[in-house]
Amino acid sequence: MAKKKPDLADFQYCGAGGGRAAKSFDLTQFDPSAKPFGSGDKARDKQTAADLALELDELQNLFWADKRFRLLVVLQGTDTSGKDGTIRGVFGQMSPLGVHTVGWKAPTEPERARDYLWRIHQQVPANGEVMIFNRSHYEDVLVPPVSGWITPAQTKQRYAQINDFERMLTETGTVIVKFLLHISKEEQRVRLQERLDDPTKHWKFALGDLDARKLWDTYQRAYSDAIAATGTPWAPWTIVPADSKTHRNLMIAQVMKKVFEAMKLRYPDSDPRLKNLKVV
Amino acid sequence: MAKKKPDLADFQYCGAGGGRAAKSFDLTQFDPSAKPFGSGDKARDKQTAADLALELDELQNLFWADKRFRLLVVLQGTDTSGKDGTIRGVFGQMSPLGVHTVGWKAPTEPERARDYLWRIHQQVPANGEVMIFNRSHYEDVLVPPVSGWITPAQTKQRYAQINDFERMLTETGTVIVKFLLHISKEEQRVRLQERLDDPTKHWKFALGDLDARKLWDTYQRAYSDAIAATGTPWAPWTIVPADSKTHRNLMIAQVMKKVFEAMKLRYPDSDPRLKNLKVV
Repeated sequence: MAKKKPDLADFQYCGAGGGRAAKSFDLTQFDPSAKPFGSGDKARDKQTAADLALELDELQNLFWADKRFRLLVVLQGTDTSGKDGTIRGVFGQMSPLGVHTVGWKAPTEPERARDYLWRIHQQVPANGEVMIFNRSHYEDVLVPPVSGWITPAQTKQRYAQINDFERMLTETGTVIVKFLLHISKEEQRVRLQERLDDPTKHWKFALGDLDARKLWDTYQRAYSDAIAATGTPWAPWTIVPADSKTHRNLMIAQVMKKVFEAMKLRYPDSDPRLKNLKVV
Repeated sequence: MAKKKPDLADFQYCGAGGGRAAKSFDLTQFDPSAKPFGSGDKARDKQTAADLALELDELQNLFWADKRFRLLVVLQGTDTSGKDGTIRGVFGQMSPLGVHTVGWKAPTEPERARDYLWRIHQQVPANGEVMIFNRSHYEDVLVPPVSGWITPAQTKQRYAQINDFERMLTETGTVIVKFLLHISKEEQRVRLQERLDDPTKHWKFALGDLDARKLWDTYQRAYSDAIAATGTPWAPWTIVPADSKTHRNLMIAQVMKKVFEAMKLRYPDSDPRLKNLKVV
């Protein structure tokens, strides 16, 4: 029996936020070590991903010129899931002129003194800009419920607020793409140990990371719940099997290419007054 | 027959934004020259308003110490409707420490490059703060539809986005109070003429003000529509008959006093460790 060819749609979830019944979602159904979009040849996949990164640079250049859209890329995932590596591997060829990254940390005092979307809204992309969120407002529906700082009812309220906020952004010209980098607990162990074994990587290590690791299953459940509630038609989630860094970059680059292509990007019309203009 | 005593609720509109049927709303049903909360004696009303402003200072002081709430006051109204005068007359006694004002102008280029709520969200009040919006995001559902820059469908979409945004703010601890300062076309004529007749007031005059005046009825309709669509249980509108400046201040001060009182403000509990502390 021929194996079904994998489709990106199989890894996208957009069943929430509408009047219709939500498609059920469970993160544990996805194998973190799978390589559904790989060729089976690692060197070849690496080359394909690198080629795609160059194509994305071209597309982003056109996107910057076109100025009709704004693009918000959300990267979520546990520690060591490869968010930094994705930014370098997939978006690293693009011009810093129109590509920006924000790494979201625990909120500061002035941030905690306002609603949790306040600081997020300040950083949304402008016309022609690509904004990459390294972590995001989704931390506000992961850490607080897992830590017991907010109730399940408050978490549900936040899901709805996030859906409203993201819908407004998309209605006003922002395209939102959300990736969950999905690694296994064993792969995280290997990567954390690598950091510990290499003193030049100790700056990436925080003792708190181990506390979150102790709550692995609880966090996986919190991710499942958040994706189930906020994977919407206007801002779907893509689940990226990410134990393999090469496959992770390959898959995300493919999604990004499709996102840009769907925009039917074009250079702006040139001003007709420029046509026969002579510079004297 | 005894005349019914006027109630503040008669001037509040909160019929929109819920699942239930909206109560109809028509701004023209309100008489701008009415003084429903006046005593009939202007000097006495002036004194009452001044006394209320002092009470509001006390209440705001407690509000600042309490820190459990954030307060957003929205002042809308045509040119010369008395927004600046309200800020001076009603909020002028409060400490600038916890009271801030933003006067919203036409959006700048970086503001126009993002959604219209982006700049608004940046200015929402922090814990314990009173933020007064002199004009607001409601300009974005007044000027653009009247000028034909956005379609009726887009205007309706903005109403829904504003309701979602304001609901999120109230769900996360912000109290929102919205005032429409309602003056007559004749009263505006008098006030504009006063500005023209006094060269020291020419800085307040823009020729564009006369263009908006030519569209008086269209703007009144746009105000009616916006209030009908965005007067919600979580962020109701209060219509303030504002031909009389004294009555305007008196009425707004009364509403503000009720708003503060409903919060059941209190000083924070003192730290028990301070109880027997000796400074040496």
